[in-house]
Amino acid sequence: MQRRREIVQGLWLVIFERGMHGVSFRTVAEAAGVSIGRVQHYFTSKDELVLEGCRQLVQAAVEDHAPAGHVVGEAGSRARDELVGFLTAPLPTTEPSRVAAAVWEGYRAQAVSDPAIAAVVTEAMRGQLDAVRRLAGLARGADVGLDAARRLSALADGLAQQVLLGMLAPQAAAGLIGAEVDRVAGAQGER
Amino acid sequence: MQRRREIVQGLWLVIFERGMHGVSFRTVAEAAGVSIGRVQHYFTSKDELVLEGCRQLVQAAVEDHAPAGHVVGEAGSRARDELVGFLTAPLPTTEPSRVAAAVWEGYRAQAVSDPAIAAVVTEAMRGQLDAVRRLAGLARGADVGLDAARRLSALADGLAQQVLLGMLAPQAAAGLIGAEVDRVAGAQGER
Repeated sequence: MQRRREIVQGLWLVIFERGMHGVSFRTVAEAAGVSIGRVQHYFTSKDELVLEGCRQLVQAAVEDHAPAGHVVGEAGSRARDELVGFLTAPLPTTEPSRVAAAVWEGYRAQAVSDPAIAAVVTEAMRGQLDAVRRLAGLARGADVGLDAARRLSALADGLAQQVLLGMLAPQAAAGLIGAEVDRVAGAQGER
Repeated sequence: MQRRREIVQGLWLVIFERGMHGVSFRTVAEAAGVSIGRVQHYFTSKDELVLEGCRQLVQAAVEDHAPAGHVVGEAGSRARDELVGFLTAPLPTTEPSRVAAAVWEGYRAQAVSDPAIAAVVTEAMRGQLDAVRRLAGLARGADVGLDAARRLSALADGLAQQVLLGMLAPQAAAGLIGAEVDRVAGAQGER
């Protein structure tokens, strides 16, 4: 397991540094500091390696960014902070989060032409939508509707891209996300 | 020029059908229906071909989606419709717009690791922001601020991705964008 994870981290570095088209057994082996044979021992094809990298990225995001389960029934302001934290956590602020955000971009682009990647990506995005809707409902004290959750998720995604391309500071993106969360959480009679 | 354009359209098809990592002189030549030698006659390297594909994609988007210049001084409702049209035009509704949206995704992901692509992509995104801000200001009758333009652009980008992945109908995305434009255009005292 440990060795598989090291190889996947090598894969992510390659995607980050060269883009998805830079991925090969050779480049991943170099980045992971192992032999090509070692990579092929764990992954029989490049597609299998790339798919496993997507699964592990989603898994790591769930572990790192998942909102705590204990907010149910707690004060709305606590849920509000959890929601802002959840939506801003993927913003590229540190080197590891920058790698993760860039690799996620690569996978999302790849999902268009690759059904196996698409299944993992859309499941993760649906999970994100559900979490956003649940937390926003708690923050507001009433169901916010799927459209509001879509809007929040889409905004956070789009701003993360602007940050990743150096067009927007992470703090500014977080501020815009916080303001939008407050609008949704405070809205009365709006879906 | 015509032949170069055909080769670039072959490149876009390859990116759409296989992702950025499927691009090679061979796959592009096949998709364009020309010989590999013909591709190499026009493009000395794969990087040059990929970069030219990005430039032409942006150019085509500017020609297809650019808001008409004649709205200055016209009624706000006209500017509102121009803005909604500008933000919804890139939504993947037809096969060509689906290809364009997918290829744009691929380039945006590639931009993270490729400075030449990044220059083209960020210039295009800045141009989009400027157009959104200008039209939103006309629609509202007052400057809307850069943050409002960023929010609108990010929302439209994020929703386009949800549409591209089959998670949201284009019409639903257009409805959400229209509602957000109305909010920004109608907002008083909000930036």
